[in-house]
Amino acid sequence: MLGGDYAPQEAVKGIARYLSEGGQAQRLVLLGHTAELSSLLEAHGLDPTHFALEHAPERIDMHEHPTKALKEKKTSSIAVGFGQLAAGQIDALISAGNTGAMLVGALMSIKALPGIHRPTIGAYMPRENGKLGFLLDAGINADCKPEFLAQFALLGTLFLQHVLGVSAPRVGLLNIGEEEGKGNLLAQAAYPLLQQQAGIHFIGNIEGRDILLDKADVIVCEGFTGNVVLKIAESIHDIVVRRNIQDSYFDRFHFETYGGVPVLGVSKPIIIGHGISGSQSFMNMIRLAEKMIEKDLLGKISEAIV
Amino acid sequence: MLGGDYAPQEAVKGIARYLSEGGQAQRLVLLGHTAELSSLLEAHGLDPTHFALEHAPERIDMHEHPTKALKEKKTSSIAVGFGQLAAGQIDALISAGNTGAMLVGALMSIKALPGIHRPTIGAYMPRENGKLGFLLDAGINADCKPEFLAQFALLGTLFLQHVLGVSAPRVGLLNIGEEEGKGNLLAQAAYPLLQQQAGIHFIGNIEGRDILLDKADVIVCEGFTGNVVLKIAESIHDIVVRRNIQDSYFDRFHFETYGGVPVLGVSKPIIIGHGISGSQSFMNMIRLAEKMIEKDLLGKISEAIV
Repeated sequence: MLGGDYAPQEAVKGIARYLSEGGQAQRLVLLGHTAELSSLLEAHGLDPTHFALEHAPERIDMHEHPTKALKEKKTSSIAVGFGQLAAGQIDALISAGNTGAMLVGALMSIKALPGIHRPTIGAYMPRENGKLGFLLDAGINADCKPEFLAQFALLGTLFLQHVLGVSAPRVGLLNIGEEEGKGNLLAQAAYPLLQQQAGIHFIGNIEGRDILLDKADVIVCEGFTGNVVLKIAESIHDIVVRRNIQDSYFDRFHFETYGGVPVLGVSKPIIIGHGISGSQSFMNMIRLAEKMIEKDLLGKISEAIV
Repeated sequence: MLGGDYAPQEAVKGIARYLSEGGQAQRLVLLGHTAELSSLLEAHGLDPTHFALEHAPERIDMHEHPTKALKEKKTSSIAVGFGQLAAGQIDALISAGNTGAMLVGALMSIKALPGIHRPTIGAYMPRENGKLGFLLDAGINADCKPEFLAQFALLGTLFLQHVLGVSAPRVGLLNIGEEEGKGNLLAQAAYPLLQQQAGIHFIGNIEGRDILLDKADVIVCEGFTGNVVLKIAESIHDIVVRRNIQDSYFDRFHFETYGGVPVLGVSKPIIIGHGISGSQSFMNMIRLAEKMIEKDLLGKISEAIV
């Protein structure tokens, strides 16, 4: 409840929206300053006794060093959350707080599923036809081996299939040429691995100009290029807003629409939201966590990896 | 005269514009089908005898294999052009034709200046305040060593200083975090080299969201990420046009505005235009070549490298 630029107000509003659209209060464990949360819930017409409230009064700010902050702020909402997740007291953890701290927690206290080379995080890429592409890695793994990319393709495919409901997602390799054999050493080596990877539908190379087109559902690359792509897409949205351009497609570059993205490959559902998350985003993140549990995405990943 | 989707008509129109704005016909050697060119020049009110016309009737198409095409089509405008350039019969070569063939010619028949690790090509990045950033490498060098990036920074700086008239260009390293020490192994290793590089003004890391902002004038990265960035920028322009969005800033994502980009680090001025180059683009490329010669950019590069 303390994560993100507009927390805890927007988090509480998101919970109110979640409940008003059929969500169940008893599913939620709210981590934050309990006294503050109680009055805030009441102010929004919600009964605090319907929720489990866990006292976690410290806040990790956006610019704090993730590892240091997690170690020192033991009663921060993120640290308490990972403690509860590791102890099996909660089934999923959602936060719009310090992304680095969420990742450190995910990799250190929860750990990767057996057989996972590197956990990864993706980014949604909106298309004009209303669909969403999913680009991964979006920034955790700046240096990758070719086999990491093949596994990202599988993780992305399973997430899209089981959680987002895309049947037979098309996988593209982000590259700087269309033909096989093009690209840097990593892309050249990843191509045949993607051809051999079971459980995915590999359609070949995808260029930068294809990212926003409906060519591939899952786009794989190392996290350096992926992060640069994500940040450009975000900056395009900023520019469009600043220039007062009204356009339904560019509106969809706003993260608020999607909520958050899961850390894929770790042993529990962990959802990371954007710092600017508002109520819709918090509601969507709760639903995403529910769906990941309901569809047993982690079980599906474990089966596919071994 | 045979390069680009709208050649030779747009090339001739570009020459007409160049002349009407003070350009000199005797500076131009036109490579193409001479009989065709003569009648086309006349049709545009230009006297063919004012130009040197070189017979080069073959055309290398956009999808031909560059090395093979250059070898087999010896009377193509590109092959004849590189022959003349190597023989010192012309001082600069301009084409909007097959980019691969232009690059192969630049690297094979003209060669790099002494001390140049890798010749490079950049891409303009328009900013809302009307300025232009210059991102390099934009796709020739998919795999780079850290010292290549430091040299790209110097080449970009010299081009902006002497040809585009930017005083003390700020150099940014494209990265996935602001602080020193962030990034992939390449960016981590390039950072101290950029700090030590003479002749540049290094301002530190630049993230994807900063590329379109006026933070750095020269942005360096390897050619994989650079090419993906360039192709996304081009695709944004396509989307804006397709969606009928009228905006003076996004209009500037159209390559037509700039003409072409030089191959930097080779021993002669070589300008590569976009396939969709129109008359304005051809005119601008002629002027760019003139300016590179007039300002002795290659002499400046040679002095700075040794």
